[in-house]
Amino acid sequence: MERKRISIVGIGLIGGSLAIQLHEKKISSKLMGVDASKEHEAKALELELVDEVLPLDEAIEQSDVVVLAIPVDLMTDLLPKVLDKVTHQIVLDLGSTKSQLIEAVKAHPKRGRYVATHPMWGTEYSGPAAAVRGAFENKAVIICNEEESDADAVAWVKQMYKKIGMHLLGMEARAHDLHAAYVSHISHITSFALANTVLEKEKEDQAIFELASAGFASTVRLAKSNPAMWVPIFLQNKEHVLDVLDEHIAQLKKFRTSIAEEKSSELKGLIEHANEIRRILK
Amino acid sequence: MERKRISIVGIGLIGGSLAIQLHEKKISSKLMGVDASKEHEAKALELELVDEVLPLDEAIEQSDVVVLAIPVDLMTDLLPKVLDKVTHQIVLDLGSTKSQLIEAVKAHPKRGRYVATHPMWGTEYSGPAAAVRGAFENKAVIICNEEESDADAVAWVKQMYKKIGMHLLGMEARAHDLHAAYVSHISHITSFALANTVLEKEKEDQAIFELASAGFASTVRLAKSNPAMWVPIFLQNKEHVLDVLDEHIAQLKKFRTSIAEEKSSELKGLIEHANEIRRILK
Repeated sequence: MERKRISIVGIGLIGGSLAIQLHEKKISSKLMGVDASKEHEAKALELELVDEVLPLDEAIEQSDVVVLAIPVDLMTDLLPKVLDKVTHQIVLDLGSTKSQLIEAVKAHPKRGRYVATHPMWGTEYSGPAAAVRGAFENKAVIICNEEESDADAVAWVKQMYKKIGMHLLGMEARAHDLHAAYVSHISHITSFALANTVLEKEKEDQAIFELASAGFASTVRLAKSNPAMWVPIFLQNKEHVLDVLDEHIAQLKKFRTSIAEEKSSELKGLIEHANEIRRILK
Repeated sequence: MERKRISIVGIGLIGGSLAIQLHEKKISSKLMGVDASKEHEAKALELELVDEVLPLDEAIEQSDVVVLAIPVDLMTDLLPKVLDKVTHQIVLDLGSTKSQLIEAVKAHPKRGRYVATHPMWGTEYSGPAAAVRGAFENKAVIICNEEESDADAVAWVKQMYKKIGMHLLGMEARAHDLHAAYVSHISHITSFALANTVLEKEKEDQAIFELASAGFASTVRLAKSNPAMWVPIFLQNKEHVLDVLDEHIAQLKKFRTSIAEEKSSELKGLIEHANEIRRILK
């Protein structure tokens, strides 16, 4: 795999973690960073996530590949503008929603240079200092609507993801957004809402702090996640997210009813059904 | 600390994990196991969690300390019967709810021999094979209504918990049950309900399996937990659990409304509020 000059737009948790992998796997000959925050740019340089920081236009011009790793609302605005500047470059994004982004460049003359991807990895932290070595390994990456992208661009992107240890899945954008609502977006909403529940009602911080078990920490961990990333995800994926959220509230109400009416065999049935998640998650 | 002959009634995840610690920290001179399941008894012997299995009455007779680690509904029935047999022994339980249990022996002539405790540790697995070495270390243990227990019994129980690395907290039973609803019971309900949401609506198991990220696994992990343990916890702690569950559903509905109406600044506010959990959980 010939090394390429790669720009990463958004050198935060996701972009920064990819930068580490691109460097370590010798995929990049040069890594350039672009970030709206001067502080993030400085931190990315200090941590040696990128070799250089540049303004967007210069970075695009000097690159073979441009990676977009910014919140999905900003990405939907930026992607058409990046494609306006592109000649031969490959452009890919790492965003958590796909339909609106793909729709935004559907008729763009350079649509073929763009590959829509979603590597299924993240943590509840954000910014360049949150970048993790070895991220993405053994996780899935979804490539959406690949038939709309040029073959050379898709081929390079696939090879890159394989080289950083990911396994590839192809999916239509709409199917991706539906599945992502189930296996990622709803988890974040339940975790945010759980944190708010406890913070609202449990006024004794010290009690939470002392008593919180590993189970609580596990379910509430995602509640630390960054609003700048998650607000646009929920809004862009509104239709699927609301659908899943309504189902989730209905499921919680089944628990409520069986507890309120002390129907232990119903409650047992609900829990046994939930236990079937073992089939899927080790 | 003089070694004692200790019986563990219920040699599952919790009882078995305590057995390992009692043995390793040289707190027990002999460990006896009692379990309603012959299979669990055989497994506990095979794994050397206990030295011997005995019928309950014999175990009590031969013990200095009797530890109850069975589901809270069975415990509420069994505790008065155990106290009926007790002469000098110390009896403690490790259950997740405290009010009903303490109420059940309030007027028992041997009430003083009993110490009500809740070590804040567990996993989503169950049975003797799920027992973990080093469990309980650096976790909190709550001792409830200690003024109702004999001083020698409380002193031994405290010393034992300190020796296995736990930090002690005292609390009235009712306060315990309220806090436990917030920091443990509600997490289990949201996790069970989340599993049911996904299993109900996401018919493509393979998609979940492939796409499920660490975030999803983290929020849904507790959904593997055992109904025999959790049904009676929810029912015994019904009042507090319903109160917290209602608040949680109300919090989810706030997310629903702000997403449905695309009120991004409200949504941002909800997430920023949830982020305050960082103050409490590292």
